[in-house]
Amino acid sequence: MTQVISDQRDIEFVIHEILQAQTLAELNDNYADFNKKTIDMIIKEAKNIAIKALLPISKEGDEFGCTFENGKVTTPPSFKRVFDLFNEGEWLAPTEDPQWGGQGMPFTVAAAIAEYFNGANYPFMMYCSATRGAGHLLEHFGTQEQKNTYLKNMYTGKWAGTMLLTEPGAGSDVGALITKAVPNGDGTYNIVGEKIFISGGEQDLTENIIHPVLARIEGAPAGTKGISLFLVPKYRVKKDGSLGEFNDVICTGIEHKMGIHGNATCTLSLGAKGNCVGTLLGEENKGMKAMFLMMNLARLLAGVQGFACAGAAYMYALDYARNRIQGRDLMEIRNPDAPAVPIIRHPDVRRQLMVMKSNVEAMRTLIYYVHYCMDMSKYAATDEEKAKYQGFIDILTPIAKGYITDRAFEVCSQGMQVFGGYGFIEDYPMAQLLRDVRITLIYEGTNGIQAMDLLGRKLGMNNGKPVMDLFGEMQITITRAKNMPALEKAATKVEEVVNKLGDVAIHMGTTAMGPKMLAAFANAHPFLDAVGDTVFAWMLLWRAVTAAQKLETAKKKDIPFYQGVIKSLEFYAQTVLPITLGRFAALLGTSAVAVEIEDNMFPG
Amino acid sequence: MTQVISDQRDIEFVIHEILQAQTLAELNDNYADFNKKTIDMIIKEAKNIAIKALLPISKEGDEFGCTFENGKVTTPPSFKRVFDLFNEGEWLAPTEDPQWGGQGMPFTVAAAIAEYFNGANYPFMMYCSATRGAGHLLEHFGTQEQKNTYLKNMYTGKWAGTMLLTEPGAGSDVGALITKAVPNGDGTYNIVGEKIFISGGEQDLTENIIHPVLARIEGAPAGTKGISLFLVPKYRVKKDGSLGEFNDVICTGIEHKMGIHGNATCTLSLGAKGNCVGTLLGEENKGMKAMFLMMNLARLLAGVQGFACAGAAYMYALDYARNRIQGRDLMEIRNPDAPAVPIIRHPDVRRQLMVMKSNVEAMRTLIYYVHYCMDMSKYAATDEEKAKYQGFIDILTPIAKGYITDRAFEVCSQGMQVFGGYGFIEDYPMAQLLRDVRITLIYEGTNGIQAMDLLGRKLGMNNGKPVMDLFGEMQITITRAKNMPALEKAATKVEEVVNKLGDVAIHMGTTAMGPKMLAAFANAHPFLDAVGDTVFAWMLLWRAVTAAQKLETAKKKDIPFYQGVIKSLEFYAQTVLPITLGRFAALLGTSAVAVEIEDNMFPG
Repeated sequence: MTQVISDQRDIEFVIHEILQAQTLAELNDNYADFNKKTIDMIIKEAKNIAIKALLPISKEGDEFGCTFENGKVTTPPSFKRVFDLFNEGEWLAPTEDPQWGGQGMPFTVAAAIAEYFNGANYPFMMYCSATRGAGHLLEHFGTQEQKNTYLKNMYTGKWAGTMLLTEPGAGSDVGALITKAVPNGDGTYNIVGEKIFISGGEQDLTENIIHPVLARIEGAPAGTKGISLFLVPKYRVKKDGSLGEFNDVICTGIEHKMGIHGNATCTLSLGAKGNCVGTLLGEENKGMKAMFLMMNLARLLAGVQGFACAGAAYMYALDYARNRIQGRDLMEIRNPDAPAVPIIRHPDVRRQLMVMKSNVEAMRTLIYYVHYCMDMSKYAATDEEKAKYQGFIDILTPIAKGYITDRAFEVCSQGMQVFGGYGFIEDYPMAQLLRDVRITLIYEGTNGIQAMDLLGRKLGMNNGKPVMDLFGEMQITITRAKNMPALEKAATKVEEVVNKLGDVAIHMGTTAMGPKMLAAFANAHPFLDAVGDTVFAWMLLWRAVTAAQKLETAKKKDIPFYQGVIKSLEFYAQTVLPITLGRFAALLGTSAVAVEIEDNMFPG
Repeated sequence: MTQVISDQRDIEFVIHEILQAQTLAELNDNYADFNKKTIDMIIKEAKNIAIKALLPISKEGDEFGCTFENGKVTTPPSFKRVFDLFNEGEWLAPTEDPQWGGQGMPFTVAAAIAEYFNGANYPFMMYCSATRGAGHLLEHFGTQEQKNTYLKNMYTGKWAGTMLLTEPGAGSDVGALITKAVPNGDGTYNIVGEKIFISGGEQDLTENIIHPVLARIEGAPAGTKGISLFLVPKYRVKKDGSLGEFNDVICTGIEHKMGIHGNATCTLSLGAKGNCVGTLLGEENKGMKAMFLMMNLARLLAGVQGFACAGAAYMYALDYARNRIQGRDLMEIRNPDAPAVPIIRHPDVRRQLMVMKSNVEAMRTLIYYVHYCMDMSKYAATDEEKAKYQGFIDILTPIAKGYITDRAFEVCSQGMQVFGGYGFIEDYPMAQLLRDVRITLIYEGTNGIQAMDLLGRKLGMNNGKPVMDLFGEMQITITRAKNMPALEKAATKVEEVVNKLGDVAIHMGTTAMGPKMLAAFANAHPFLDAVGDTVFAWMLLWRAVTAAQKLETAKKKDIPFYQGVIKSLEFYAQTVLPITLGRFAALLGTSAVAVEIEDNMFPG
């Protein structure tokens, strides 16, 4: 039986052999206890919870979904039991400050936990992730009193958190929001507005829900410059910490969605009775800054969610391909007496599995690496180092969100294809994964927004230093690989692509600031694809370098794994990178057709 | 308001200006009445039915789906009413022989009807299409008595038809089927077996259902060589044409699917009580030949279904992009007082619409062209001409099925992306389209099977004559285009791609017959992608040639349309064809990694 959810050996490879997570213990007292043994124990326990508690209620979550009646949301029947179990195990805030109920573990380790949890039941996890994200905001921007009032109850799962950004007229354009905040004179604000698409905006899992809300203080400037962040609890909290009056946050409905049925997507009406009170979180009119802190985490999380779905789809498809007997071996195709074979023997199925394998491995390495950068940006030895890693986070976030979720959708679809007709049947796991994963391309900024972020903001950030640093890291890996005979050929191909990407990036960055700006931005998404291909190639090369080294002294049982790592690189270099070069050629042409075509040339 | 379902102007362009469908009237007495006026009237009427009858019950079909109880299937509430209306209008068998209740119209014209009907409600249409397909089999292989008994009732929608191929152990490998046929001595056979994934295998729309069934006569050879085709009615038919005894065809369940909820996907048990009688359709052990006749039509139909979903998705996305106000114009991005604009103004949204536009237009032209080839293969002036067009059908069918449905899924996903968060909500049409279209990549032979068909069978068919003929047609279009200044640049690009595809095809065809055969077939799907890209480029070039000619004398109101046709070509040539060249490079490398990797290098 192939493993479910994820490939434990590969997780260990990335955590220990590539990123050497145990070395983080040396960086920082908080991490001192996280030696290899502890890390393995944590991951093993997370895997256990994922398989024994979260996965078994995934299908129930999809089938029952959430229901809405008279302002109340009912989550799927088993969610409350498992939510409580999950929080008894203290899994909600793995990286957060222990003084507030977090576990204080390295982000790198938390990435593995997140993979298992989200791969098992990502709609369920959204209640936890949203709470963690809201807590994170509070931790950074809250007053001591706000933290004392809310934070521990959130990180321990007693209360939940959300994020109230979107309004019917303000989606991608947050600056268009009209929710109003009127000072009450006592330091609090009266909040009035309607928010939509609020994940976990109402539910029956926790006794209170804490909503960070973007709103405009009366008289504040238009656009994003006049947006402030407020903390609005569902129930007000008394001085003694007990729950007080209902705070006029009414759920008026939930969405009927294509996927993530287990998570309630709510429309919330704030202050319909004029009785919704919030406190400012951070400074007046600085709401966007706070939002971006949370948004970057949310974007990385969307990448994790997409990757986790893709990783689970890969495991299911692999298992199915090994066990489904259908058709003769292609070499025996004209022999009617030849036995039927498992479909993993068929070249096209193997190709699909290799597409899934190479993509999922690259995703995993990139996701974990960004988490590693988060550790390093906090605890690296020097400020310069910290800044370098922060730069990596900045530039890799739109790739981890936009490029990974695009590929994750394809991988899930590929997995469905391996299942043939059964893939389309809801009794098998592929349909739900494909339906669930699709939202990751949309929320937390559509992938088009990610592409614009990469081209318009990240590429030229700090005079291009982060990008140059990243190219530097890639070059280090290439140099190491080129000295290894087994990798030389693939490394040369990766080097060609990395070098040409340099030219493409300069071309695109320049064009985006010149008269052909609109054409450049019409090519932002193809540029994201091209950068993403290259980053994946780098990840696979890095993996292969590590594997080739390990192979020199590997135990027999580990040899196939390391060889498989190298095969992923070779497959990617041979089947994807030639196409990446084609993408580069298209980008250098920078088609302006999409922006030049007149609106009336589209059908009326 | 943008049109729904499809773009009527583009349909007219393809039917009249490119394919000149009215000239078909000259070829054949049967078509004599189909002048331009009649054709337009038929298409207009089909559009009416699609918009007024089929489209309004599409969502109901998705939401209610089909239910199963005690062997009975209940279709969505309004389906019966609309099914009867549809058949009163005599729409079920547009191209079929009038003596049996068909309308005898050209396939080319029927393509337009199929686009509107399937774009409006493709799960509903499956009941009709399956009936038509079964009738087609009967028309070709049935005895006069069989035809007299069944055919007219089927083509008029009084009775339905299906196709019983798949069994739990025989999906892609039809030759593995075990359904048994035992001669009764009176020319009939006793049928025993279980069939799965039967679209419309049971329903409440018609009083009888006629099942063509693949089964193996006792003692027949193993594999595909021992398969025969039988006709098995749900209720036996008496000599006077009235319904007799129940024929022991029991529906034991229906599938819970990701999409096409309105169509019942049934498991049928035949002869559980030993009382299922069938008659041979065609010759003993020649069932596969009959199946392929139907299968080729079914594959083209899958392409039509995929294309129709993509076309509808494009219309919805375009309409949404024109009406959704969100965000400022990119040129005014730093001016907070600038007004919000319709999202069609944003470069990334325009790019997405151009991706949809160019793909949908290429799909439409290819689908209609294959239908045109069907007309020509029947009625062209000479046998040589007929054979040429039959060759085009043979080679284009795996592309019309496999490549078009792959792209259709992407186009529907792109459409969802244009809708942003609303795309994921089931109140909007995109989610259903994306869920529905996904099965078209799987059924009637997975797209992997299509790719193998193209590489392993169609490429070398008749010593490569169909392929060479097709290249000849492409070259004619290129030559015409290169003489037009407005098209010269794009035409040169298309020519480069077509010429290189020649090399790639020779390389792949040779490799597929040599010692690297497995590697070749591991690249069959990428080869399908490469061929498909090229065929789409040809289609767009052909369209542009026609449009450029028309522009010379066009009325003012038609100019934007023709310019839009040329823009699609330019967009495709600039953004896709460079990538196609990358695909070629990868194919010439013919990666063997997928077939060389050992099974134990995949995760255990």
